[in-house]
Formats: sequence, structure tokens, C-alpha cells
Amino acid sequence: MSVTVITEHYPAFMARWEADSRGRLERAALELYGERGFEATTVAEIAARAGVTERTFFRHFTDKREVLFAGSARLQELLVTAVANAPDTATPIDAVAVAIDAAGALLNERRDAARQRGAVIAANAELRERELIKLATLAAALTTALHARGVTEPAASLSAEAGIAVFRVAVERWFTDPDTSDLVAVIHESFAELKAVTAGK
Amino acid sequence: MSVTVITEHYPAFMARWEADSRGRLERAALELYGERGFEATTVAEIAARAGVTERTFFRHFTDKREVLFAGSARLQELLVTAVANAPDTATPIDAVAVAIDAAGALLNERRDAARQRGAVIAANAELRERELIKLATLAAALTTALHARGVTEPAASLSAEAGIAVFRVAVERWFTDPDTSDLVAVIHESFAELKAVTAGK
Repeated sequence: MSVTVITEHYPAFMARWEADSRGRLERAALELYGERGFEATTVAEIAARAGVTERTFFRHFTDKREVLFAGSARLQELLVTAVANAPDTATPIDAVAVAIDAAGALLNERRDAARQRGAVIAANAELRERELIKLATLAAALTTALHARGVTEPAASLSAEAGIAVFRVAVERWFTDPDTSDLVAVIHESFAELKAVTAGK
Repeated sequence: MSVTVITEHYPAFMARWEADSRGRLERAALELYGERGFEATTVAEIAARAGVTERTFFRHFTDKREVLFAGSARLQELLVTAVANAPDTATPIDAVAVAIDAAGALLNERRDAARQRGAVIAANAELRERELIKLATLAAALTTALHARGVTEPAASLSAEAGIAVFRVAVERWFTDPDTSDLVAVIHESFAELKAVTAGK
């Protein structure tokens, strides 16, 4: 490629490079957390590996912990929307199941990143606590979304908590069991298991 | 009562006073947290209201937060023992239900303190997070106790998570609904509701 061609394409290239800086920061952070641990990694190192400045890092994330948890806002929106859009005839647990399926489909697309993230969190007590809090927040959001469908207590809370329990257990199995590749399939099996378990089987 | 009688009984009185200093510290702390908030209360104030020194406070508790969470070790032991002692024929969810019932019976005896504690925790974000972590720890302990009975995954995790979800929802209802006085009865209703909900009703 001649210098002229590069120069001509430079603005477009730079725009794309800029647009993906968030994605590159995420990938760089996950790599570094995996290599040297979450605690030992600095924002400067993440920015350097992603090829951006620290200033760019802080345009996207509050701190290095936020890189791991920024996705949960999107997950929450997805869950709440799925519950809201479930057919009127869906029972509370069906509405929750549709939402958990949607979350599973989202993670399926990002399997490697999800696994790297899971390993980083599992290795750090403070991150494990943060993850629990985020999952509890998701359960609370699901409960509110069920209330909006007219589901009363305790059915709303129990359906939401059951759904999040299934999600946690399924993701854990998907992380550790090499025979599982489709998270949505693991979620379906886990819902069936929950049904069997609560029926006293 | 003559001075002689008091003097004669003094050692016994002092021994009892000392023995209950932990209980008095707990009651004093809950009162103060309720009156002026958890953040604004100092260890010195708790000790003064309980009629003991700060040194005595620190013989019983690491810090003022620990007063609220020290009971969870006893709760965990109770849950684990109940699961271990459940009949061999009990299904996983039955073993968990027996354990949650035992926890409910324990809280029933301490209704006022449990409610005061619940109100203090509800009013403080950091305490709510700590409570979530304690509940997750209880779920993990129940899971391990089920593994020891030979229950495999995902049945063990799902039964344990379902049991803790029922416990949370039942305690919440017991706190807020003036018509409920027996926590064990509320737990039974919540288990029945979970069963109905997961069956898709």
C-alpha cells in the first residue's frame, strides 16, 4: 500500500480504531488480569496494551474493576425487556425463562471473554462479592419487571430468584464442563432440573 | 434487701452480668443503630449503653458491623447440621426445607431483635451488600452439606439456592406483614409457592 493510499484512508481507519477502543481495552484488561492477576494489573498497563492513552481508558471506565462489570447494565436491560415482551399468557417462570435464555444467547456470542472474566472473578474475593451484588441486582430488576406484568408477591421474587439461580448454576457448568458449548441448552437443562428438584424428585 | 444479702449474692450477680454482656451489647447496638443510624453510632456509645467497657465490646466483636452478622455463623451451623441429620430418604429439597425450618424456628424466638436488625440493614447499602454475601455463604454451605449426602450437581446448588431464596422471601414477608407471626408457617407457604411457580403455575 502506498503512502498516499494510507493517508487517504487514515481518517476512516482512525475512526474505526477509536470506535473499537472500548473493545480493545476490555480484551487487554482480561488478558492482563489472567496473566498477572487483577490486583497486580494497572490501568496504565491496560491502556498500553490496548494502544490507547490512560485518558481514553477513563473515558470508557471509572476504574479497572468496572471493565469486568460494565456489561451487567446491558444484561439487566436485556432481561427486563425480555420479561416485558413475553406473551401475556406466559406464566411468571416462563417470562423469566425467556429472559434467562436471552442472556444465555448473549453470553454464547462472547464465550471466550465470558470464561476469562469468570476465571478472573473466581480468583478474587472482592470481585466475587461484587459479582454476587450484581446478580442480586439482576434478580431485583427481574422482580420489578414481573410486578409490572401484574405478578404479585411472593411469586415475583421467587420466580426471579429461581431464574437467577438457574443462570448462575448454568454459567458455572458452561465454564467448567468441556462437553457444554451452548449455554442456552445448559440453561434449559438447569430449568428442567430445578423443576424436578422443587417437585421433590 | 439488706446490704449483707447483696454482698453475699454479689459474685453470682456479677458472673451473670458478665455472662450476659454479649447479649446486652447486641441489644444496645440494635437500639442505637435504630435511633441514630448505623453510621452515626460509635463503639463507645454501644459499650456505655450496655454498661460495659469498650474493651469488653472488643472481647466479643471485631467491630460494630460484626454485631449484626455474628449470628450468621450459628445459623450456618444450624443449617448444615439439619441437612446432615435429615433422614436418608429425604430428597435434596426436603433436606433443605428441614434446615430452613430450623432457621425459621431460631428467628421466631428472636422476633424483635431480628426485625430491628432487618430495619438497620435495609437502611444501609454497605450492610445490604454484606447481608447478600452472608446469604450466599449460607447457600454455599448448604450445597456442600448436600454434596456430603451424595447429592450431585446441579441438584445440590439448585436446591440450596432455592432454599435460601425461600428463606429471604419469607423473612421479608415476616418483617413487613403484620398478619404473620410464625416465620415457620410463612416458610412453608413460600416453599409451596416456589413449587407452584417452578411448575409453571
